[in-house]
Amino acid sequence: MAATDLDQIVNLCKRRGFVYPSAEIYGGFRSSYDYGPLGSLMLRNVREAWIRTMVQERDDVVLIDAAILAPPQVFEASGHLANFSDPLVDCTKCKQRFREDHLDDPNTCPGCGATGSFTEARAFNLMFKTYAGPVEGSGAEVYMRPETAQGMFVNFLNVLQTSRKKPPFGIAQVGKSFRNEITPGNFIFRTREFEQMECEFFVPPAESAKWYQYWCQARLQWYVDLGIPAEMLQLRAHDADELSHYSAGTSDIEFRYPWGWGELEGVAQRTDYDLGQHADHSGQKLDYFDQNSGMRYVPYVIEPAAGVNRAMAAFLLAAYDEDEVGGEARTILRLHPRLAPYKVAVLPLSKKETLTPLAHDIRRTLAARYMVDYDDTQSIGRRYRRQDEVGTPLCVTVDFDSLDDGAVTIRDRDTTEQVRVPIDSLLAEVGTRLGF
Amino acid sequence: MAATDLDQIVNLCKRRGFVYPSAEIYGGFRSSYDYGPLGSLMLRNVREAWIRTMVQERDDVVLIDAAILAPPQVFEASGHLANFSDPLVDCTKCKQRFREDHLDDPNTCPGCGATGSFTEARAFNLMFKTYAGPVEGSGAEVYMRPETAQGMFVNFLNVLQTSRKKPPFGIAQVGKSFRNEITPGNFIFRTREFEQMECEFFVPPAESAKWYQYWCQARLQWYVDLGIPAEMLQLRAHDADELSHYSAGTSDIEFRYPWGWGELEGVAQRTDYDLGQHADHSGQKLDYFDQNSGMRYVPYVIEPAAGVNRAMAAFLLAAYDEDEVGGEARTILRLHPRLAPYKVAVLPLSKKETLTPLAHDIRRTLAARYMVDYDDTQSIGRRYRRQDEVGTPLCVTVDFDSLDDGAVTIRDRDTTEQVRVPIDSLLAEVGTRLGF
Repeated sequence: MAATDLDQIVNLCKRRGFVYPSAEIYGGFRSSYDYGPLGSLMLRNVREAWIRTMVQERDDVVLIDAAILAPPQVFEASGHLANFSDPLVDCTKCKQRFREDHLDDPNTCPGCGATGSFTEARAFNLMFKTYAGPVEGSGAEVYMRPETAQGMFVNFLNVLQTSRKKPPFGIAQVGKSFRNEITPGNFIFRTREFEQMECEFFVPPAESAKWYQYWCQARLQWYVDLGIPAEMLQLRAHDADELSHYSAGTSDIEFRYPWGWGELEGVAQRTDYDLGQHADHSGQKLDYFDQNSGMRYVPYVIEPAAGVNRAMAAFLLAAYDEDEVGGEARTILRLHPRLAPYKVAVLPLSKKETLTPLAHDIRRTLAARYMVDYDDTQSIGRRYRRQDEVGTPLCVTVDFDSLDDGAVTIRDRDTTEQVRVPIDSLLAEVGTRLGF
Repeated sequence: MAATDLDQIVNLCKRRGFVYPSAEIYGGFRSSYDYGPLGSLMLRNVREAWIRTMVQERDDVVLIDAAILAPPQVFEASGHLANFSDPLVDCTKCKQRFREDHLDDPNTCPGCGATGSFTEARAFNLMFKTYAGPVEGSGAEVYMRPETAQGMFVNFLNVLQTSRKKPPFGIAQVGKSFRNEITPGNFIFRTREFEQMECEFFVPPAESAKWYQYWCQARLQWYVDLGIPAEMLQLRAHDADELSHYSAGTSDIEFRYPWGWGELEGVAQRTDYDLGQHADHSGQKLDYFDQNSGMRYVPYVIEPAAGVNRAMAAFLLAAYDEDEVGGEARTILRLHPRLAPYKVAVLPLSKKETLTPLAHDIRRTLAARYMVDYDDTQSIGRRYRRQDEVGTPLCVTVDFDSLDDGAVTIRDRDTTEQVRVPIDSLLAEVGTRLGF
């Protein structure tokens, strides 16, 4: 596999409609991105692959979808209002502002070169604040959630009472979170607006070490199963001095990004900290009564927390390849079929009216089950290259023989092998080849 | 069908885990809701049904996923900064604030009864504002989008250049929008945070009347196809005095809510207003050059704009029914199989260890394709009732005979009929009955 640099992916993403800079016609909106036709389909595939593994295939995790805006009480209890901040310093000479923990030299301003010109560091909270209701600046402060996790803790009791689940069980959520990062960057890796896939898994305290190990392995395996080579992944346990004060252990699942190893997902052993905090602040009992043992306890929490956007970036980087077909260079995304934006492309050999109705019939048949592209422009060779470049696993070519023999050609993205298949069994054949 | 009142649905939604008040353990956060295990699955089904019809099954609409936060330029161009406001008055006696257009008597304060006590009305903008970057109150104002539509207009050129689409074609998006409504209410019908499903369909100007009619009918039909009786729906053309200044025609698809006819979706003929505004403000040419005719033109836009949450409310209200089975009352959600949170429930007749492994095998087989519930608590009759109440189309009962004859019983939600089916053909049989 070719070593992929970030520019190759950024260029492909822009050129082929995966990712556009937000508000680009207005000069862009720094480190904010919109996802185009292919990117929005791929994001959706990442989310769906996660929900499939984390919720659908299991019997012990339920999904929720909580509001993004939340009142201050939630973040007082969670500790975000007090602690979710970066240390900022101002240069008294040039008036620029910096993150103290990102300065190479804590005495020299990287803006103007002045020495000893910084103010004392002050904490800058990373939550976006706004006001609900008709009076700006009044008491109706609300926050955009900086993580989806609090939605699961706040609804722990509701889920317990309405879902027949009991520990060990999980509550999962996919949704947008917002952090007013001082230094966003690295394309879609770190942005102020991003999407998370988090699960809070509630367990009896005595089982928390076991479940922590379980989730570290299960989540690492998820990326491998979806096509990331094992050598591009590592599980890194946090050192004691990296741990949050409530954490009994955290491991990052790291990906070998072009700029080095970086976090793809964190698996944290959060103890009973979150439920305890919300119980204290709300006055509600957030615990579980085990009828078998007669014991009442506050469950411990194991949290696998992944990012949708950085997972997409990792899947793209791992899938990017360049090879040669018939002496010509091609770019190819070797994406897992579940992640590929289009599963099949229908390509009529010609735009002639004799072929078009059959080609569209075939498109409709496939589109009843799969996201399908249809392309009747330029040479068939160029169209194959175009589908390879966006990772479409299968191309179906409709030619003039198809009108007589009722068959079409299926071409495989990775091997470029072509097989003739009767149209009657096309849907089944595509299903077998994709694996779903 | 029973006439459904709102309380029946609100109670069912709370009791069974469709919808919880946000931050309920803190006393709630007015008119904001979190979606529980069943509600989050149903929301997802509503979105997926829309994407399926609007994008997957068509060859002329692509999906995008744009950022929620956007800079002021976008909303200067769209007119939201200047015009997206409600008229508010203050009572000088009791200091309460009201929407002038909601007052029964424009002279008498409904708060304290004072006469002639109101201030002049002033425009209150409905957009949520916040600040990006490290300095609150500085120039980095950003807004939470009040509609998803602007994402499509701002990306019109990007999509045109990267997707091989040409008018007539559409750009679709599903996502959260935010409006600082003064008077949210009616459960999930009107909330400050809500989710939209919008399509901007770009057409040659001469074809706009035809496409407007097309989309009015197509969108109405979507609700009928997903199970809402035609008599609970109406298409209502706006009167001339209801139209926005740029609109050449708007029709609401209305649903007969318990409180009267209310908007479910709007289909608007927006002319070239939006692209024209963004072209003026950005200095970019947002038009299309038709190589066949040699003409350059700004496409007209037809916009079908639906709400995910209010669609879910309508589907629930239309599906709610009460009948009798074997002399016992039952509550039933007659949801379309595509919308039902769970497609199948697997119910072992007993918790005995002899049945459990087989029942879980069957659950796993079905869960590879469908969202499945598993319930082994209480009597089988109560479990059927429980599934009927949340709209599960099929129950699969595993009994002691299953161990010998390799067959299970499928029970139909609507007819309550039961049929014995070999386990080997269960997945196919479920597919046939669900229709997918």
